[in-house]
Amino acid sequence: MLRELHLHPDRLLPTESGIRDLARELYRSVADLPIVSPHGHTDPSWFATNAAFGNATELLLVPDHYLFRMLYSQGVRLADLGIGGSEADPRAAWRILAENYHLFRGTPSRLWLDWVFAEAFGIDVRLDGETADHYYDTITDMLATEAFRPRALFDRYNIEAIATTESPLDTLDHHRAIAASDWGGRVLTAYRPDPVVDPEFQGFAQNLARFSQVSGKDCDTWAGYLAAHRAMREIFKDAGATSTDHGHPTAATANLSATEAETLFDRVKGGDANAADAELFRAQMLTEMAAMSLDDGLVMQIHPGSFRNHNARLFESFGRDKGADIPTRTDYVHALKPLLDRFGTESDLSIILFTLDESAYARELAPLAGHYPCLKLGPAWWFHDSPEGMRRFRRMTTETAGFYNTVGFNDDTRAFLSIPARHDVARRIDCGFLAELVAEHRIEDWEAADLARELACDLARKAYRL
Amino acid sequence: MLRELHLHPDRLLPTESGIRDLARELYRSVADLPIVSPHGHTDPSWFATNAAFGNATELLLVPDHYLFRMLYSQGVRLADLGIGGSEADPRAAWRILAENYHLFRGTPSRLWLDWVFAEAFGIDVRLDGETADHYYDTITDMLATEAFRPRALFDRYNIEAIATTESPLDTLDHHRAIAASDWGGRVLTAYRPDPVVDPEFQGFAQNLARFSQVSGKDCDTWAGYLAAHRAMREIFKDAGATSTDHGHPTAATANLSATEAETLFDRVKGGDANAADAELFRAQMLTEMAAMSLDDGLVMQIHPGSFRNHNARLFESFGRDKGADIPTRTDYVHALKPLLDRFGTESDLSIILFTLDESAYARELAPLAGHYPCLKLGPAWWFHDSPEGMRRFRRMTTETAGFYNTVGFNDDTRAFLSIPARHDVARRIDCGFLAELVAEHRIEDWEAADLARELACDLARKAYRL
Amino acid sequence: MLRELHLHPDRLLPTESGIRDLARELYRSVADLPIVSPHGHTDPSWFATNAAFGNATELLLVPDHYLFRMLYSQGVRLADLGIGGSEADPRAAWRILAENYHLFRGTPSRLWLDWVFAEAFGIDVRLDGETADHYYDTITDMLATEAFRPRALFDRYNIEAIATTESPLDTLDHHRAIAASDWGGRVLTAYRPDPVVDPEFQGFAQNLARFSQVSGKDCDTWAGYLAAHRAMREIFKDAGATSTDHGHPTAATANLSATEAETLFDRVKGGDANAADAELFRAQMLTEMAAMSLDDGLVMQIHPGSFRNHNARLFESFGRDKGADIPTRTDYVHALKPLLDRFGTESDLSIILFTLDESAYARELAPLAGHYPCLKLGPAWWFHDSPEGMRRFRRMTTETAGFYNTVGFNDDTRAFLSIPARHDVARRIDCGFLAELVAEHRIEDWEAADLARELACDLARKAYRL
Repeated sequence: MLRELHLHPDRLLPTESGIRDLARELYRSVADLPIVSPHGHTDPSWFATNAAFGNATELLLVPDHYLFRMLYSQGVRLADLGIGGSEADPRAAWRILAENYHLFRGTPSRLWLDWVFAEAFGIDVRLDGETADHYYDTITDMLATEAFRPRALFDRYNIEAIATTESPLDTLDHHRAIAASDWGGRVLTAYRPDPVVDPEFQGFAQNLARFSQVSGKDCDTWAGYLAAHRAMREIFKDAGATSTDHGHPTAATANLSATEAETLFDRVKGGDANAADAELFRAQMLTEMAAMSLDDGLVMQIHPGSFRNHNARLFESFGRDKGADIPTRTDYVHALKPLLDRFGTESDLSIILFTLDESAYARELAPLAGHYPCLKLGPAWWFHDSPEGMRRFRRMTTETAGFYNTVGFNDDTRAFLSIPARHDVARRIDCGFLAELVAEHRIEDWEAADLARELACDLARKAYRL
Repeated sequence: MLRELHLHPDRLLPTESGIRDLARELYRSVADLPIVSPHGHTDPSWFATNAAFGNATELLLVPDHYLFRMLYSQGVRLADLGIGGSEADPRAAWRILAENYHLFRGTPSRLWLDWVFAEAFGIDVRLDGETADHYYDTITDMLATEAFRPRALFDRYNIEAIATTESPLDTLDHHRAIAASDWGGRVLTAYRPDPVVDPEFQGFAQNLARFSQVSGKDCDTWAGYLAAHRAMREIFKDAGATSTDHGHPTAATANLSATEAETLFDRVKGGDANAADAELFRAQMLTEMAAMSLDDGLVMQIHPGSFRNHNARLFESFGRDKGADIPTRTDYVHALKPLLDRFGTESDLSIILFTLDESAYARELAPLAGHYPCLKLGPAWWFHDSPEGMRRFRRMTTETAGFYNTVGFNDDTRAFLSIPARHDVARRIDCGFLAELVAEHRIEDWEAADLARELACDLARKAYRL
Repeated sequence: MLRELHLHPDRLLPTESGIRDLARELYRSVADLPIVSPHGHTDPSWFATNAAFGNATELLLVPDHYLFRMLYSQGVRLADLGIGGSEADPRAAWRILAENYHLFRGTPSRLWLDWVFAEAFGIDVRLDGETADHYYDTITDMLATEAFRPRALFDRYNIEAIATTESPLDTLDHHRAIAASDWGGRVLTAYRPDPVVDPEFQGFAQNLARFSQVSGKDCDTWAGYLAAHRAMREIFKDAGATSTDHGHPTAATANLSATEAETLFDRVKGGDANAADAELFRAQMLTEMAAMSLDDGLVMQIHPGSFRNHNARLFESFGRDKGADIPTRTDYVHALKPLLDRFGTESDLSIILFTLDESAYARELAPLAGHYPCLKLGPAWWFHDSPEGMRRFRRMTTETAGFYNTVGFNDDTRAFLSIPARHDVARRIDCGFLAELVAEHRIEDWEAADLARELACDLARKAYRL
């Protein structure tokens, strides 16, 4: 039996009729605003080469850890999905997704995918075992057309700017190719130095060697290493970067003397740092990055608190980023103090904080951002980038930090086709939240209209200096 | 002034009329489904002997720690309630409950008890000082009738299966008597080895001696001790068990070598283990239990995070389980890693995780269960087995773990008469949650209907291999 | 363009029409009840001298850390607001607030201030850059009138009793002057001994010297120090105090032997205690205070978990209490055990617990208060004294602790003019919560009516022994 796929125009809006009317009006006023995507993980080669995407599985399933982690949790073998370079028939892999699509009931993946199916591909029946082949063929066929080339989608999606994320070891060739092309899409990079900042990163010593090469600075000394960062940040800025990004296990910062920092660098540079030294070095580097940001104006993002590659056996067989990253309890109040003791009062510095630990929203993050001039709150992140997660974010941060210490939405995704769906979810949830504030007479309707626009675009532009 | 007792048919359903209609329809479709009770603490002797229950106080007040902890918190003396073997006039004790029944406003105990009063006993006035004797007499009289014998209630309550919880030192005579009887009720046991696994359990050394006797294995050696577990698990399986249960202070697991484990066992077996050894031994035993589960197919349940008998003076006077167990912050991400490093990718293993620390729902538990094939999430537990607690559970776990990594409802109670009330609360709350998802167009109505049935019975049957 | 300022009569009530009607009716029944303010920080000199307040900025902006922390977070310099004794033109400072008033959208400050503007001063246009001068002049002019003298406001606000908070080093002259006056307002003190209990308090050693003087006991010995507390508590009781208050970094308590305590006191009394000794001394003093409370009947309040003066540079320039206090994760279960082991079963002792860590509500605080006779829960505090914060408090504590282990509302403020607004917010939110319980048929309407009155006044009177 075929089930109709239809995206209800009022989806995710508050259900009470009075508030829904209000929310719908707010939503309509922002639904078609351009997409500002200041942080994410799309592949710049897409926009540089503008090559067609492959088949449905390759584009939508294989790169999406939300999808294969859920399938895996229910006993599906990753090898059968073609994950981690494993050989699998893409049509058969797609069928596995289709037959298990009920697993995603109530999840954001379901919302994002249904949008892609209905809006991007115009499919009007639901995905299940019966429609698996229809989906696979329809999507794969359309991906071969001009309209589904990356640049065409970028334009059709009304993307004002999108940031990718590169390591300092990246040559930024794709960004240069985009800039040199006759296409006008704005694709920025962001400086993500984890491979040369985290002594526990795979191949850290070799990464430093390569860092010396690409930067032209001798990273065998602390001074040279810092100079290499300064040099590469300039190169990234030239390629459009307005921000840096730091994905550390904790939010720890440090404020060592130059001598202590130098000694520490000498201990860790060989790549065999112990855990305490590695943590201290990462901590010190956040403070060093803040110092550099004060000079060059790049906005800092801190994405802490993920226990990466928690599943040891899976990591051995399939490698990094296979849906096995698990959030941990994260302290900010003590962790950030060394950095804040040094730079906390600088209003030219801008640090955007993220969390996977929602218990920190009302307790730590909103009070910190509602005080320190240099701190802002990034949106609900990763597992919390979801309707309920966004609602909790607004409910737990707004009363203490206000709206203006937040920075709008980040899609933070490599799932390019779903980017409009993700921004759409955020706009709907924010408009719903604003409508509730109006309905409770906590703000006026004209204030909600202002805020809807600011949350949709303006705050992101401003916070990321776009 | 007598106040009418009336259970509103729409209680606990969403209050907005559109959603309430939807929720009511879903609820009607599951309200009369059989009760599957895969984890709880009813007394198997009830069903073995089928003897009449005693008076109202003895049945409803004395065994219910939710009730007497609240009365105690407001200055009532436990001795006046007949708790802990103290002598108290049961009618006078009942009167104390009645006169203080307002303390339970807004609590789940109130919901459960009112159901028992109205539905089980047909009482139509509210409990207060004025109606105390009427209640006491009505209930006590009815308990003497055939219709209120345990087996009659079991049948009337439409219980498909119920699990009790026994220590390996239990002889399971009652379960054998039930099986040998001509009554068809399905009463299972579950293997709860805390008394012989936790070196800090009262009488641990004597428990081990007794464990040797009942198992026929020499528990003076590590090998013999493990063999005793294997033997007793088989005996429990023969008596119907499909699961084990582990009530540890933390979720810590360990993955020691056989030699290390043996040495540790030698250190703790005498009963005078230090705190670190005790914790490590419990941790190692969770991993050993998982190994055995892989062999014999028993589903593991981990119920961590309760600080037992927190009130030292009360413990001295009245003993264990007197309403003084207090939840503590509980880590899962690091705690479970040793076990998961060894068995995490086994899809034949099934471990059901519970928590008293709701901050772990969205941060740790849903991400873990949404990835590891062997992990599932037990329902909102103990203090969180309540309307608001269940709503938080669904709101904080569904978007990351989905519904299918959860296991339906557990009543987890020794309060036999309230079992239907507890399942009824869960069904109402789940149907309300599903109706909200439909009203927000996050799932379709036919999906909600599927899920309502699955949450009410199917997931429990499947997860507990019933 | 002038925007109308109008306080909607239904503000903060549930938005669904059926529930709103119910909530409105409950609210009406308590809206005009007297204000019982058992904990706060108003200045007793106001009521002793009854001098006119100064200008708008001096009264409403400079003392309100909620306001200037938010302005500061957005780059406003505290010196431009006249904070910390800095010279600033009050009219210009007011203009900064006015032009940035949009920052407070969605915050409780906005609700409190709008009430003060509309209800206390009768202003009917919204605050913004355009109306800044109108506001400044109107407010400043009215403050010069008799109707805005402290005692007149106290009477007009229908304050039944208000507690201020004083250090044992305070002479209580203002309280004595109030008592000796012909004015009938009830202004109590509360005993807040942090300056002589916390070895890390600025000037601790000098404080002890002064403590000897004011108490007439020799605080150079442990016995004398305890006697000084006993003596000063009596003096505070004579001046109306019914409670003590303890603002410690953590909730740690200790239960040292007399000898250990004495030795510890000798180590810390010089003012150069190490961190561990300081923490242990504070911990022991909570237990000593409980012992004294058992004797003299003063109710204890514990306000733990704030990391004071987190912003080091700001502290150097502007001093304490400048909006830089940040909540931290707070444990209660282990922290309170030493005290509870000694006094937990005393039903004559009353300890009111507060938290800045909402993750403790359902996990620790409600279970503790729902068991121990001596424990009650204070209302949502500080950053959580807000509509969403109060809702979370009720939703996360009621099911386990009930309503009767809570103590009504505290305004906890020095912002005297906003006190009615704060109580009004609490009454609206509580009535809304009760209306929801009625609408879900979890309590009856007559029970909600009882509870609304109890939450508004009765529980506070009872818990604080007023």
